[in-house]
Amino acid sequence: VYPRYCGFSTYARLPSIHEVSNFDVAVVGIPFDAGCTYRPGARFGPEAIRCASRLIRRYNMGTEVYPFRDMQVVDYGDIPCNPFNIPKAIDEISTGVGNVLGRCDGVVIIGGDHTISYPSLKAISDKFGPVSLVHFDSHFDTWDEYFGEKCTHGTPFKRAIDDGLIDTSRSMHVGIRGSVNDHEDIVADEQLGMKTIFCSELDDNGFDWVANKIKNRVGTGPVYLSLDIDVADPAFAPGTGTPEVGGFSSRELIRLLRSMKGLNIVSGDVVEVAPAYDHADITAQLGANIVFEILSLMAVARRNKTATTSA
Amino acid sequence: VYPRYCGFSTYARLPSIHEVSNFDVAVVGIPFDAGCTYRPGARFGPEAIRCASRLIRRYNMGTEVYPFRDMQVVDYGDIPCNPFNIPKAIDEISTGVGNVLGRCDGVVIIGGDHTISYPSLKAISDKFGPVSLVHFDSHFDTWDEYFGEKCTHGTPFKRAIDDGLIDTSRSMHVGIRGSVNDHEDIVADEQLGMKTIFCSELDDNGFDWVANKIKNRVGTGPVYLSLDIDVADPAFAPGTGTPEVGGFSSRELIRLLRSMKGLNIVSGDVVEVAPAYDHADITAQLGANIVFEILSLMAVARRNKTATTSA
Amino acid sequence: VYPRYCGFSTYARLPSIHEVSNFDVAVVGIPFDAGCTYRPGARFGPEAIRCASRLIRRYNMGTEVYPFRDMQVVDYGDIPCNPFNIPKAIDEISTGVGNVLGRCDGVVIIGGDHTISYPSLKAISDKFGPVSLVHFDSHFDTWDEYFGEKCTHGTPFKRAIDDGLIDTSRSMHVGIRGSVNDHEDIVADEQLGMKTIFCSELDDNGFDWVANKIKNRVGTGPVYLSLDIDVADPAFAPGTGTPEVGGFSSRELIRLLRSMKGLNIVSGDVVEVAPAYDHADITAQLGANIVFEILSLMAVARRNKTATTSA
Amino acid sequence: VYPRYCGFSTYARLPSIHEVSNFDVAVVGIPFDAGCTYRPGARFGPEAIRCASRLIRRYNMGTEVYPFRDMQVVDYGDIPCNPFNIPKAIDEISTGVGNVLGRCDGVVIIGGDHTISYPSLKAISDKFGPVSLVHFDSHFDTWDEYFGEKCTHGTPFKRAIDDGLIDTSRSMHVGIRGSVNDHEDIVADEQLGMKTIFCSELDDNGFDWVANKIKNRVGTGPVYLSLDIDVADPAFAPGTGTPEVGGFSSRELIRLLRSMKGLNIVSGDVVEVAPAYDHADITAQLGANIVFEILSLMAVARRNKTATTSA
Amino acid sequence: VYPRYCGFSTYARLPSIHEVSNFDVAVVGIPFDAGCTYRPGARFGPEAIRCASRLIRRYNMGTEVYPFRDMQVVDYGDIPCNPFNIPKAIDEISTGVGNVLGRCDGVVIIGGDHTISYPSLKAISDKFGPVSLVHFDSHFDTWDEYFGEKCTHGTPFKRAIDDGLIDTSRSMHVGIRGSVNDHEDIVADEQLGMKTIFCSELDDNGFDWVANKIKNRVGTGPVYLSLDIDVADPAFAPGTGTPEVGGFSSRELIRLLRSMKGLNIVSGDVVEVAPAYDHADITAQLGANIVFEILSLMAVARRNKTATTSA
Amino acid sequence: VYPRYCGFSTYARLPSIHEVSNFDVAVVGIPFDAGCTYRPGARFGPEAIRCASRLIRRYNMGTEVYPFRDMQVVDYGDIPCNPFNIPKAIDEISTGVGNVLGRCDGVVIIGGDHTISYPSLKAISDKFGPVSLVHFDSHFDTWDEYFGEKCTHGTPFKRAIDDGLIDTSRSMHVGIRGSVNDHEDIVADEQLGMKTIFCSELDDNGFDWVANKIKNRVGTGPVYLSLDIDVADPAFAPGTGTPEVGGFSSRELIRLLRSMKGLNIVSGDVVEVAPAYDHADITAQLGANIVFEILSLMAVARRNKTATTSA
Ligand SMILES: [Mn+2]
Ligand SMILES: [Mn+2]
Ligand SMILES: [Mn+2]
Ligand SMILES: [Mn+2]
Ligand SMILES: [Mn+2]
Ligand SMILES: [Mn+2]
Ligand SMILES: [Mn+2]
Ligand SMILES: [Mn+2]
Ligand SMILES: [Mn+2]
Ligand SMILES: [Mn+2]
Ligand SMILES: [Mn+2]
Ligand SMILES: [Mn+2]
Repeated sequence: VYPRYCGFSTYARLPSIHEVSNFDVAVVGIPFDAGCTYRPGARFGPEAIRCASRLIRRYNMGTEVYPFRDMQVVDYGDIPCNPFNIPKAIDEISTGVGNVLGRCDGVVIIGGDHTISYPSLKAISDKFGPVSLVHFDSHFDTWDEYFGEKCTHGTPFKRAIDDGLIDTSRSMHVGIRGSVNDHEDIVADEQLGMKTIFCSELDDNGFDWVANKIKNRVGTGPVYLSLDIDVADPAFAPGTGTPEVGGFSSRELIRLLRSMKGLNIVSGDVVEVAPAYDHADITAQLGANIVFEILSLMAVARRNKTATTSA
Repeated sequence: VYPRYCGFSTYARLPSIHEVSNFDVAVVGIPFDAGCTYRPGARFGPEAIRCASRLIRRYNMGTEVYPFRDMQVVDYGDIPCNPFNIPKAIDEISTGVGNVLGRCDGVVIIGGDHTISYPSLKAISDKFGPVSLVHFDSHFDTWDEYFGEKCTHGTPFKRAIDDGLIDTSRSMHVGIRGSVNDHEDIVADEQLGMKTIFCSELDDNGFDWVANKIKNRVGTGPVYLSLDIDVADPAFAPGTGTPEVGGFSSRELIRLLRSMKGLNIVSGDVVEVAPAYDHADITAQLGANIVFEILSLMAVARRNKTATTSA
Repeated sequence: VYPRYCGFSTYARLPSIHEVSNFDVAVVGIPFDAGCTYRPGARFGPEAIRCASRLIRRYNMGTEVYPFRDMQVVDYGDIPCNPFNIPKAIDEISTGVGNVLGRCDGVVIIGGDHTISYPSLKAISDKFGPVSLVHFDSHFDTWDEYFGEKCTHGTPFKRAIDDGLIDTSRSMHVGIRGSVNDHEDIVADEQLGMKTIFCSELDDNGFDWVANKIKNRVGTGPVYLSLDIDVADPAFAPGTGTPEVGGFSSRELIRLLRSMKGLNIVSGDVVEVAPAYDHADITAQLGANIVFEILSLMAVARRNKTATTSA
Repeated sequence: VYPRYCGFSTYARLPSIHEVSNFDVAVVGIPFDAGCTYRPGARFGPEAIRCASRLIRRYNMGTEVYPFRDMQVVDYGDIPCNPFNIPKAIDEISTGVGNVLGRCDGVVIIGGDHTISYPSLKAISDKFGPVSLVHFDSHFDTWDEYFGEKCTHGTPFKRAIDDGLIDTSRSMHVGIRGSVNDHEDIVADEQLGMKTIFCSELDDNGFDWVANKIKNRVGTGPVYLSLDIDVADPAFAPGTGTPEVGGFSSRELIRLLRSMKGLNIVSGDVVEVAPAYDHADITAQLGANIVFEILSLMAVARRNKTATTSA
Repeated sequence: VYPRYCGFSTYARLPSIHEVSNFDVAVVGIPFDAGCTYRPGARFGPEAIRCASRLIRRYNMGTEVYPFRDMQVVDYGDIPCNPFNIPKAIDEISTGVGNVLGRCDGVVIIGGDHTISYPSLKAISDKFGPVSLVHFDSHFDTWDEYFGEKCTHGTPFKRAIDDGLIDTSRSMHVGIRGSVNDHEDIVADEQLGMKTIFCSELDDNGFDWVANKIKNRVGTGPVYLSLDIDVADPAFAPGTGTPEVGGFSSRELIRLLRSMKGLNIVSGDVVEVAPAYDHADITAQLGANIVFEILSLMAVARRNKTATTSA
Repeated sequence: VYPRYCGFSTYARLPSIHEVSNFDVAVVGIPFDAGCTYRPGARFGPEAIRCASRLIRRYNMGTEVYPFRDMQVVDYGDIPCNPFNIPKAIDEISTGVGNVLGRCDGVVIIGGDHTISYPSLKAISDKFGPVSLVHFDSHFDTWDEYFGEKCTHGTPFKRAIDDGLIDTSRSMHVGIRGSVNDHEDIVADEQLGMKTIFCSELDDNGFDWVANKIKNRVGTGPVYLSLDIDVADPAFAPGTGTPEVGGFSSRELIRLLRSMKGLNIVSGDVVEVAPAYDHADITAQLGANIVFEILSLMAVARRNKTATTSA
């Protein structure tokens, strides 16, 4: 027995890739933030989430599952990528995630800024085909470009949709809020085929309405869960680059994630944790717990599949 | 197109008073905190809110309005006032706000401590007559004096009521909580003709009850909205001088403000943001967004008036 | 009249033990944190809570009571105890708290880590017999040992139950959440005779259900209220050693405490405030206010007893 | 034996005024900062220095003296004064310090902003006659007024000179640096009869030159030592209101103070510690140590007098 | 007279470009940090230095000059540049600086990361021909590439030398220290024709030796002074991206700059201030003062030229 | 090539013990702080130093050596030890360090509080016999006990001397300063046979005097270098538990270490880095660099030995 603060900081004190060779699921860091438009620093997100994750224990009371017992999870370390050249980095990330997926059944990626979801979805789509995207964020991230650049943290899902990586008919945004440049931004996103649950709809319609809307939209196919930490209110997640006041509490967010129990979550990411703006690691701890919730959802999905198969 | 972090930090990247000569509404800083009784530093509030406001975009999804398109809004800069002599500062502020109101239709003032609402209301009352006051705060701010001083951040509304600047029959406090010196403080405030929605009443009676109570109280006359950032819980607004635990979340606060859509908001202020105690600018960002919500309410009120007039 | 920031920092600017000789209730610091398993520093909790408590005023609007008028409350200062030897410290604390209780009717203890509740309960049980425990925490704190040690901040209530200090049939945990080592941890706690209100049950069943469950469980006998500040979400209480995301807001927590009005609260503690991780004193202010709420509950309980006696 | 972090935070864990009735020297807080021109918050200086002083032990290796053994030193607590009205506060401070000096031989005052040195010098001069002033600061603080106000933290020594409280022929500034409004500021200060050791002169002429210049200037009469913490570089003292880069290190500063051993230091002050801008208490610790050095110098001076008298 | 904390935050409260049309020297922000290899955030450097510069007054005691009186200095605002594409940004910066230099005699640039010195030197060289470079830094910044990228904050002076923008025979590095990848890094830099004063040489040889070495190397031709704030020790400049312990103090650094009085400084830059890592603005204040020292050197150089011309 | 912020955080990005099996020297963390008397938290020192060490490159310019090329250095990870029971931890640490030393030639230990030097010296002495101790600290750490405890961070070298682990005739303290309980503390330390270079002696006698005094004292035998980060001034090392103002700068400290080039340094430790009080990692970076300097000294000593042997 080791004290929790003891030893190298792998995610949740899991074995590192140096210690195991076979695994079902990998936690992977992508320390890239060159696609960021405001406060940079998410390149230090993987390290911060790993350090903060040491308090995470084995059993998830909410989803009633032991993700690290039921699946062999490894901390794969980081995928290195070019900090100066976005197209190069996009290639390195999609190749890197593809390599990991070649060795296991699913990944949970720790960003990095939201740019990384596009190359990650390339690799995901290669393995699973076009997936349902459940996107928690205060922003749409479906702009077509920003300052003339096609790949930034404001554009990943436009790129992914353009490339056919997402089944938009089963995809949605959750938690959108804040000012936008134009009402047209909302319209344009709808025209891509996406649906949105605005943050205010939780107050207007209640938790069950939101949870059901997600479930009904998603159906039974493979789901990629992408969560931008700025979907949480800055009180709960100050450590991020483009904060928007008026967001979800940590408790609401975790409850929403747990309501997705039973959906076919195959992989996911947690992005935009920027520790330079964090305090007492509260953002990193939230990020670490969200990774744990996603892993738990994946463990349940996997159990369901096994049950179905063996039935 | 400029990156949002680029250029001088005017409120919401609006033109400064050096760049435009005609305007409908002015955002005005009053960096005064000599009326503060506990943690000082609100004199740096205008600067902090300006810097934090650069993430604010043009369209308000909640109230469905483009405040900067529908009104010409300017960042007027700061009204200088004496940091050592409260009576002199009171005169400088009322004169200064009066001068701004002589050039436009309304102001949103960024404090500074709550002392400034008294001289601001002098100028407001000169233009609009006695106004309805909707006062968001965890404190009444209707003491008669503090340490023998008549004008402090604990007394502005007593002064304003004594001077007849407020129509108390249409005015109220929202968000009061925390310990008080005496039950008599509550009674004394009632005897001034004010009504109060205590913070706990949101839990007891629900959002709609609160929203309706405000609307019914206020009616159709001109409203001045004064918001002390300490009405929010310290988790959402640590950067303030006399914090009280147990307050509104940012989401609740913004939802309450948006529920006032349609009221005749003519001006307002956001006070008590003290950045020395803030973290990652979350208090300043909340302040910046509240200024945006007030401007949006003013834009709607203005649209309603135009509609009525032109009908 | 003194400005609130003026003078020695006793709790709520109460007289210190050097200034009064007779008192009904004592606020007592126990700056001990050698039982801590993760981030240490709660030894500075008493000082931080005293400093932050200066904004607390005399009248509690929620419970409608003047605790400092209705009871003579003193700041007793700290009980010194050995930082290097847990068994010695346990003895020093139980003796120290016993001495205080020999001079008055009840105490509110400021920790220090949760280890201190065990020796405090020894002294409490000596005076009141086995008490009902209402334990607010995100953790059970009923492990049998940790790294071979019997007395740590993860084990105080196992020790107290083993020693018969608690009437488990009237006791409960409130606010439990987060990952646990094993489902067996939950089962083992139940087998001790405790009941638990998990944090998620507030969302599932509502406030009144929770409040009633506590009241029904507790009954009319003497109650010891032990509150680990990590029962609050890290957004509201970052300054603590083993934070768990997804907890109560300050407003929820205070509302829960106030719902216990009328119960026979005889003493209590507020533990695990670690100011090194706090920001702008928000955790310490929450701690200070919880002390105030417990004192207010004790004042009401005392008034009820007097009323009963004199009737 | 108590752990150093245990118990009420009096200066250096000295007895408080509630615990002793006779004393030779008093440490006195004056939590006043309404004379501040830039970043306020020095009102919390006394509390911060008291908390940080708990690491101070009994023997001063540098000056080879036990100040707390050789003199009965008490922590007198704070002198309350009006935060809103400078003239009233000036009166309260001079009266308050006078009262303390009526009960003992000398004081070390903890500010508060530098405004307080003027009323303190009134009381000092009443007891000792016009004193030699050794003024450590990055600023002259001899302006005649600021924004029309005669008593601010930029003017105390002009006021003191005008009132004849200082023997300018034996007085000097040490550590002046930074930009000034005008070369005339330097000339005007010289015309008051003051001499200055600029910060750069330590580099140009060496430590001994500076130390001797101070000693030769001061002579054998009573000396008041006033130290603005901004004389230290912001790296060593970030927690202050008007920092100037390029100042003394803590080691240089303490060495300079120790070089004054043997001078007839009768009282002194340490001002402008503003903990809101401090980090890990380093500024408060420096302040606490400077108070200790002044007390040590006073103890040596007192020993010298006794030796002379008894010879 | 305005309080220093009042009004828009231009550098040293100078007029903004919106307020004046003719000027001799411009302070220009370049909020670019996409060339950063470790902790990003220098894009917020211009804003932080502007805010911190408000304490700067008119007269420089060290160089005995009034830079704002002797030259018309303007705050030009920021040059916007692409955050995602380094080559585009390089073009935008060299064009932007060229435009400014077309309207005045010299610039002081506020970065941004050190990448910006290369495009700035393009514009400088266009106006002045190849200049002497005095480069204060803990790093050489003469690598040929980094991760395959030619323009990063580790390569600006290799690029400038390759393009012939610098007269290496009159140029030097000052303050180099810390570990390097290889001894070859040092050799390679020498082979470019640069000379270096290592940080340790100040300790070994004294201040005068260093000052003279700089003067002798530079001669009388036009000098560009580029200062990376990481040349200062992290205690004095924590707010930067690639800190190296063991650097200059602020006082040493300012003394070194002042020793360059009389050299023909025509322009300069202060780079790598990253406020996310700063505390109490001490790094930004140091940056602001260094800008002031460069402006003062430019004012002296200009005075000398005028004297020569008019003689 | 990986960006420096990429990958698991081993010391200086060295291979972890999971990646290599043979090595000459090990960097070992000991996350233990239960012997701390004031601000705890040094248990997080190893993690903080590892993260901060990523900027360290291969070549040491000061000592002209490539420590990672000339020796196979491994990051061994942490030695787990009991946080609740000091005697158990002492055993675990001496056994653990002994195990490491059984596999290699030397260690550099990262604390943890200073308690750990005693059990480390047990293992060192087992391998090398009684060693010369060069102890950098602001405190003697040779008390016999503290609160009745024999093993704390104030007593390690008294224990080591009592056990004959140190050759006191070749050992010394460097950097002692601050107040002490009693002049007898100094005398008692001398009576143990230790010599001391007080911090003030650097100012009095100059660098060369100090450097020679160390070298002359130490001679040619094996040396253990123990460095408490509080030997540096709090401006350079705020992140520590018992700071003392007036200490060495980082540059002085590194220069002192480099002056020991050629001594027979066989192992060492860097202790008391407590990141909860650090800012922008400056203390951790200093600690990381000191580890690098010790490794460099060990590499030189090793080279010297090889040269002698092969001669
Ligand atoms: Mn987002
Ligand atoms: Mn996003
Ligand atoms: Mn308020
Ligand atoms: Mn208010
Ligand atoms: Mn807990
Ligand atoms: Mn607990
Ligand atoms: Mn000053
Ligand atoms: Mn001063
Ligand atoms: Mn550099
Ligand atoms: Mn550079
Ligand atoms: Mn030490
Ligand atoms: Mn030590």
